[in-house]
Amino acid sequence: MTRAAWIAVDWGTTHLRAWAMGAQGEVLAEAASDEGMGRLRPEGFEPALLRLAGSWVEGPTEVIVCGMAGSRQGWAEAPYRAVPCTPLGPPLAPAPARDPRLAVRIVPGLKQTRPPDVMRGEETQIAGFLASHPGFDGVLCLPGTHSKWAHVSAGEVVSFASFLTGELFALLADRSVLRHGLGPGWDEAAFAGAVSDALARPERLAGGLFGIRAAGLLGQTTGDAARARLSGLLIGAELAAARPYWLGRRVALIGAERLSALYAAALAAQGLATERADARAMTLAGLAAARALATEPAR
Amino acid sequence: MTRAAWIAVDWGTTHLRAWAMGAQGEVLAEAASDEGMGRLRPEGFEPALLRLAGSWVEGPTEVIVCGMAGSRQGWAEAPYRAVPCTPLGPPLAPAPARDPRLAVRIVPGLKQTRPPDVMRGEETQIAGFLASHPGFDGVLCLPGTHSKWAHVSAGEVVSFASFLTGELFALLADRSVLRHGLGPGWDEAAFAGAVSDALARPERLAGGLFGIRAAGLLGQTTGDAARARLSGLLIGAELAAARPYWLGRRVALIGAERLSALYAAALAAQGLATERADARAMTLAGLAAARALATEPAR
Repeated sequence: MTRAAWIAVDWGTTHLRAWAMGAQGEVLAEAASDEGMGRLRPEGFEPALLRLAGSWVEGPTEVIVCGMAGSRQGWAEAPYRAVPCTPLGPPLAPAPARDPRLAVRIVPGLKQTRPPDVMRGEETQIAGFLASHPGFDGVLCLPGTHSKWAHVSAGEVVSFASFLTGELFALLADRSVLRHGLGPGWDEAAFAGAVSDALARPERLAGGLFGIRAAGLLGQTTGDAARARLSGLLIGAELAAARPYWLGRRVALIGAERLSALYAAALAAQGLATERADARAMTLAGLAAARALATEPAR
Repeated sequence: MTRAAWIAVDWGTTHLRAWAMGAQGEVLAEAASDEGMGRLRPEGFEPALLRLAGSWVEGPTEVIVCGMAGSRQGWAEAPYRAVPCTPLGPPLAPAPARDPRLAVRIVPGLKQTRPPDVMRGEETQIAGFLASHPGFDGVLCLPGTHSKWAHVSAGEVVSFASFLTGELFALLADRSVLRHGLGPGWDEAAFAGAVSDALARPERLAGGLFGIRAAGLLGQTTGDAARARLSGLLIGAELAAARPYWLGRRVALIGAERLSALYAAALAAQGLATERADARAMTLAGLAAARALATEPAR
């Protein structure tokens, strides 16, 4: 039976992930469910957490949460902090719990006024990365449903930019007319060619997307190449838009293995070497840093 | 009770529209349903047509169909004709019918090899337009789910380009994270600004889309402005990609009233005056032209 010294939680729109943490920062157990913020009303968060991680709770237990649980429609609002600022900072927002053993705190997201942008969850991964790279000066790219590019210097997030790339891919691959022509596999050359096309002619994106369908109907492509081309056009369009972030910079990728590899390949084709960090490890390190911040005495 | 001299049919992916036509080309009755190609198997087309228009059929009746009913997964395949070519041309594809009174023919779509592209249905509207503008030399823009731009000269479609604009708008407005921030109304200035932004910096599209959501969360926009900005960014991106089609050309828009007005406004802001033609009228004129072609003796 696992008894957690504290519980680390990453609560996104579509997922809930929790880790039972030991006193020395070790992971004792982990669990995940699809009870993301999108499926919950505010009063539903505590029961969802207890369903997933209740067996880890014996006595008073700290719970540190990052992600969309801190949005206005979440468990409790953790108001955005404005960049430029450190990725983490007080106050963490307390979230109400009926179970008296739980002390829940939520990490605030970051906001940028011009151009308008927001993040919730990625700030924790950035903090996790900085914990092991304290002097990092460069750019962090966090590919995903809503990819983020963050310029980090002197321990602060200076500016950032978000892209709908992952969500666009999912919508187009699963719900648009393109779905009829996509195979289950992958074609490296088609991906590389599409990234290159999109970077060279980013204004052609909307036409290039329909071209994937037309090429399939005319027998000019395979399903696997079509899937890779769709991904390549969208990632290439993101790279075109994010060029001021990566051109001539030190760039580290924080993300899932497979997706990070695609971004690394796309950037390598532009002559840019990238570092890589595991998203799960960065989240855990960031939540540990947030906990330390929440419990350290006021100075 | 209506008895059709012939029946005109526009059969798209999501809709079925039919008109009972009189001997002089007048519309005697019309009907529509949502039994589009996407919901039908090949054997389902005839029953769907009879449910909608069966009461118009007394004796032998010609049925002329354009649109996706002619695709490989449709009622009967009407193989694409390759541009450059006239928008209509023999042979129309016969479609099987159990009811001996029905003589069904389907208008072929057009294809282009480089860059790969296809259309089904728009060729009929183009033919309808040319019937009343026989000497037209310029560009036809047909905004919609999959917008088309066609260069027309000497009675032929020389080349064309398709854009996923309408489908992207529907997916993003109804199914993406942006749906949370869109109002029911409209903001002309937000639309015009977004078109201008997208034309000036087309490479920023993927970032601009997330920015709509962020601006809403930060209280920098209204729901109505967010909806207009989404539309403006996507139409602006299409105009950026289609620039070789419209720059310095004579352009006519064929489409639904509301959508054509948006394209006309966007192009007017670029200094381009456009003509307008009604999509329904062009479809009917084109189907009448296809019927004349199908029944005229071989020469």
